[in-house]
Amino acid sequence: MAQLAFTLICSVAGLWFAIYLAKWVLQNDEGTKEMQSISNAIREGAEAFLARQYKTIAMLTIPVAVVIYLLYTLRQSSGQENITTSQLALYVSGSFIFGAICSAIAGYIGMWVAIRANIRTAAASRTSLNLGLQIALRGGAVSGLFVVVMSLLGVGGLFTLLRLFGISAQQIPFLIVGYGFGASFVALFAQLGGGIYTKAADVGADLVGKVEAGIPEDDPRNPAVIADLVGDNVGDCAGRGADLFESTAAENIGAMILGVALYPYFGLKGVLFPLVVRAFGVLASMAGIWVVHTEEDGDPMQALNRGYYLTTLLAFIGFGIGCLWLLRSDQAPYAWLHFWACGLIGLLTAVAFVFITQYYTEYKYRPVRSIAEASQTGPATNIIAGMAVGMESTALPVIVIGIAIIASYALGESSGVIVKKTIEGKEFVLRGGLFGTAVATMGMLGTAAYILAMDTFGPIADNAGGIIEMSQQPEEIRHKTDRLDAVGNTTKALTKGYAIGSAALAAFLLFAAYLDEVRAYGTYLVAVDISKPQVFVGGLLGAMLVFLFAAMAIRAVGTAAGYVIDEVRRQFREHPGILQGTEQPSYRQCVDIVTAGALKQMVLPGLLIISMPIVVGLVFKQLGIGAETVAAFLMVGTIAGILMATVLNNSGGAWDNSKKYIETGALGGKGSETHKAAVVGDTVGDPFKDTAGPSLHVVIKLLSTITLVLAPLFL
Amino acid sequence: MAQLAFTLICSVAGLWFAIYLAKWVLQNDEGTKEMQSISNAIREGAEAFLARQYKTIAMLTIPVAVVIYLLYTLRQSSGQENITTSQLALYVSGSFIFGAICSAIAGYIGMWVAIRANIRTAAASRTSLNLGLQIALRGGAVSGLFVVVMSLLGVGGLFTLLRLFGISAQQIPFLIVGYGFGASFVALFAQLGGGIYTKAADVGADLVGKVEAGIPEDDPRNPAVIADLVGDNVGDCAGRGADLFESTAAENIGAMILGVALYPYFGLKGVLFPLVVRAFGVLASMAGIWVVHTEEDGDPMQALNRGYYLTTLLAFIGFGIGCLWLLRSDQAPYAWLHFWACGLIGLLTAVAFVFITQYYTEYKYRPVRSIAEASQTGPATNIIAGMAVGMESTALPVIVIGIAIIASYALGESSGVIVKKTIEGKEFVLRGGLFGTAVATMGMLGTAAYILAMDTFGPIADNAGGIIEMSQQPEEIRHKTDRLDAVGNTTKALTKGYAIGSAALAAFLLFAAYLDEVRAYGTYLVAVDISKPQVFVGGLLGAMLVFLFAAMAIRAVGTAAGYVIDEVRRQFREHPGILQGTEQPSYRQCVDIVTAGALKQMVLPGLLIISMPIVVGLVFKQLGIGAETVAAFLMVGTIAGILMATVLNNSGGAWDNSKKYIETGALGGKGSETHKAAVVGDTVGDPFKDTAGPSLHVVIKLLSTITLVLAPLFL
Repeated sequence: MAQLAFTLICSVAGLWFAIYLAKWVLQNDEGTKEMQSISNAIREGAEAFLARQYKTIAMLTIPVAVVIYLLYTLRQSSGQENITTSQLALYVSGSFIFGAICSAIAGYIGMWVAIRANIRTAAASRTSLNLGLQIALRGGAVSGLFVVVMSLLGVGGLFTLLRLFGISAQQIPFLIVGYGFGASFVALFAQLGGGIYTKAADVGADLVGKVEAGIPEDDPRNPAVIADLVGDNVGDCAGRGADLFESTAAENIGAMILGVALYPYFGLKGVLFPLVVRAFGVLASMAGIWVVHTEEDGDPMQALNRGYYLTTLLAFIGFGIGCLWLLRSDQAPYAWLHFWACGLIGLLTAVAFVFITQYYTEYKYRPVRSIAEASQTGPATNIIAGMAVGMESTALPVIVIGIAIIASYALGESSGVIVKKTIEGKEFVLRGGLFGTAVATMGMLGTAAYILAMDTFGPIADNAGGIIEMSQQPEEIRHKTDRLDAVGNTTKALTKGYAIGSAALAAFLLFAAYLDEVRAYGTYLVAVDISKPQVFVGGLLGAMLVFLFAAMAIRAVGTAAGYVIDEVRRQFREHPGILQGTEQPSYRQCVDIVTAGALKQMVLPGLLIISMPIVVGLVFKQLGIGAETVAAFLMVGTIAGILMATVLNNSGGAWDNSKKYIETGALGGKGSETHKAAVVGDTVGDPFKDTAGPSLHVVIKLLSTITLVLAPLFL
Repeated sequence: MAQLAFTLICSVAGLWFAIYLAKWVLQNDEGTKEMQSISNAIREGAEAFLARQYKTIAMLTIPVAVVIYLLYTLRQSSGQENITTSQLALYVSGSFIFGAICSAIAGYIGMWVAIRANIRTAAASRTSLNLGLQIALRGGAVSGLFVVVMSLLGVGGLFTLLRLFGISAQQIPFLIVGYGFGASFVALFAQLGGGIYTKAADVGADLVGKVEAGIPEDDPRNPAVIADLVGDNVGDCAGRGADLFESTAAENIGAMILGVALYPYFGLKGVLFPLVVRAFGVLASMAGIWVVHTEEDGDPMQALNRGYYLTTLLAFIGFGIGCLWLLRSDQAPYAWLHFWACGLIGLLTAVAFVFITQYYTEYKYRPVRSIAEASQTGPATNIIAGMAVGMESTALPVIVIGIAIIASYALGESSGVIVKKTIEGKEFVLRGGLFGTAVATMGMLGTAAYILAMDTFGPIADNAGGIIEMSQQPEEIRHKTDRLDAVGNTTKALTKGYAIGSAALAAFLLFAAYLDEVRAYGTYLVAVDISKPQVFVGGLLGAMLVFLFAAMAIRAVGTAAGYVIDEVRRQFREHPGILQGTEQPSYRQCVDIVTAGALKQMVLPGLLIISMPIVVGLVFKQLGIGAETVAAFLMVGTIAGILMATVLNNSGGAWDNSKKYIETGALGGKGSETHKAAVVGDTVGDPFKDTAGPSLHVVIKLLSTITLVLAPLFL
């Protein structure tokens, strides 16, 4: 078990590095009293939200765990050798709860550091851009490393534990599928609740503050301004942390299931391969984070890019070592080279997604400029142009993903790995193709820790800017935090592109795992034939679920924003001193209202996503075609989810930046009619890009993990 | 061949009735000189556009026909007994050209009557609401009957012709698949070009006229006002006529292919069944159209609904007679009852779609009101609410379609029909299930002629209102045409729902026909397995195509509207007398500019749709999996198309009516800030509901017909 030991050592190294970075961040200056009081208000609000959110999620998690346990115990046989149904039920539901807890911890820690790094980034920016950049990135890195290490330790730990119980390595992945579902489950509510919170506060603050009362953004007179800053943390930090935790956890387990299928070739090594290459990825990300620094007049984005390219290069080398170590087999001497090439495909796919997202969301390029130009004829043409850009932006990502899937599959098929099995008396031949696509996914997720560090950089820089603004620091310092904030907006958009790309690749691997699991339970399911009417209808329902969920998530923001608008208007009306600057608004009341509102609004769309696969599976089971219909539901739902999330993220990002482009003085600049039209697009894009879009990333993977867990019930 | 004779007799009866109605319409009064001069301007503009559009389409059709011919001759064998490759090539490309010509004629005739009925409806409304209603409906009915009869005569005629050449009845459907593609091909460009025209003129006229110059809608001082009225005819009449012509033609041929598969049971009768029940549908629609009349103070919508219900009832009875006559077999004595029930499912699906569309787009109900309420906080919340309504509105139609497909399939499977075949040495069992779904589609399309009459009613009433407005008739008469216009808006929305529902049902039948065709050419394709990576990527590409096409169609409207805006601004600037009412604007120049612009903008999205299936088929053929990947491309593309078209149609309709709701005086009424916000949504919805959405109906079916034609090339 040298592989498990290696994974453990790398995990501990990653953890140690994360703690070191956290200490380094915390030792920095906390700025003036004024700044601290703002930062404390943000911290309190964020912690209060997370505490209440986790309580709500826990109340949803426990019944689900019980239902999973009961459904499994109802089965006549466990379908697994030497394991009773009640044991299986215990393993699956237990790993579900464990996954949920780990996911919650990953989200919490990410936010814990972020809400402490924001004030220090703000304070540092008063003297040094480099120090500001480093605090924000290293604060984000704590979150990134924790997320990846937690998923490694969680899956590796469960594996070790079950081995100690004497369960065979080939069975373990099927027993711990609940871990991935637990992670998805919490991620869904974390991202959805956080996403609703952040945009309800943002839209509410803007509509009453900027539009009605005519005060600037982040103005301390606006009662919703703290809620808005809290939103960045609970939506972007906690939400995205849980999202990527779930990606890596689900991908780990899915890839291990595929590794089991190739057991005759690589044995235990193939099963543990996903953990080992992820461990290499942690080392690569540590190096990448360490080297980031900038000159006072340098471009912070370039500094982050340097770190990213170093991480990619090191991950590539680590990948090669992993392949050579674990995927060499005398029966297939060149297989390891083939799989290394698959890993490279994954790394390049990540880079391609980063570039494509930049093209569609930065104002250097045609798409965002076309929206800005359309704003000259008013809000309607601004919206039309933005929708067109969003829908157009699906083309290149789909082509890239298509090439990545087919190329890695072809490399795997030609790797020389061939396994023959007998299921329900029929022969079944498996080549290395699906494992190839899995390896490409691992390659793409190899840089996950660094990407997540860049992502969390965004809300930290954003908050730092807000603190500088609210504490009314001089123009020159604002300019520095504005530069960091602009870079943060770009990294946030990139991460969304990366998250959707990795979800798309991971999804294909998870489908394969689902089919493998169904076959492992002894059902001969080798095709998902959408020319069968029931299966086609399953696909149609899957795609519809994505549209319906997006509608509910978007509407939830509107409803929750309504609560904020009413409260801000009330405060302005009852306390006229607030707008004159003679009276302090009650930030706390706004925070409470948006907290309650977001938690209330997240439940319905969340339950829709959880219940619909179950309903579809059980209904079509009655029609005698449960497993295959659910597979189509999952696959076509995933296709629709990838496209819809891309539209929502990119149109939202493009609207945001077309407004920013006009604010640089182009086409009439701030205050012009063109700018007003662009503000409409920006507001429309808010729930698209920060609520519905990111929640759909989670939905894509949740559909896979829930079907993995419930597969045995649909047979 | 009593069936062919019956079909012919009904067709001639339908044709005679259409000519009778046209004469009846034309004998009515043409109103004042002023009204006539407006009407003449509309007619000239519409005819000029159609002439130029058909020239452009012809220039695209001929090369495509040549390419089809060449591609077919390149094949080593025709795959059909007693037919050489060059004969097959001739039949397919010849029927393609024939289909294209028929489609063009269907579109032209629909418009020919409409642009003559508009002035007569306007004139009649001055004295009698009932007469106005009857002229508008009967004018529309000419188009509806012509479209359905032409598709019957086209397919029936081709069938008879090829029988006379001595070709076996089982082979004929495969030789005339080109007819469906030709129809789709023209329909795509007709709907796309017309859709771009109508909305470019509308948006252009509104943005400069209403918003910049502050003059009312349909004001004679606006140089784009005639172009706007022309647009209603070329977009809604010619476009939708070609759309439904293609639906019925493609469905006829697809159902005949499925009938061939059941040859051992029903023989020639099964192949001709689709034509016979369609002929019954023509008779039913004739009766429905005949009975429509209203009292002066009655609700015109109720009058139209009475006609619709009568048509549905008669179609149901005709369906039963057809089943009893043609689908009775001693081997399966109750099969005809099962298929009759399938037909009923189709008829009920049509009714369900009509109700669902009404719920989401009429301001009596929650969805439209929620958009109106959201407009109170500005255009951004109006847009967000509208998008949410549009996406939510996919749920019920999908559930209805799902139930219809599964129920009709189950009825067919249990009908007792079982056919066994041997393909590539493997046994293949076929039951009546797929034929059941086909019969449900026939049921849904049974009322097509009536529905199309109601649809064309819309633009005729709209134009009549415009003529009354421009010729400055008294308030009281305006009120009458406004009532007809409001009913027309409802019927237009309903037809879109119906078109999308029938496209969804027909699509499933066309998939089945595609697989049947591939098998008839001797390739053992019995499953479309999207768990294969290449096939999954094919599905992903199909869904992406829908998003990309929608983006291009929406953007095309923006670009073409830009030309109109520039021209109207130029006229106002260079001739200040226009706005003062002392100088006549040049309507003609606007019409010319929008004609050229729309035709230019329709080419690129059109070519994308035509070329992508070919590229996907040929690329994946190189990977050894062409036919199956194309099938997934088609099926997932269809799913995405159904959902996207529903979102675009319903959000657009809901925005439109939320504005109208406010104009009734609700929430501040016309002129309020709320109303201004609602106008933004209405403008955004224009290219959604009148360009991209309806074009997607055609795209869904075109993907099927193009793959049917090209299937032999992908093997």
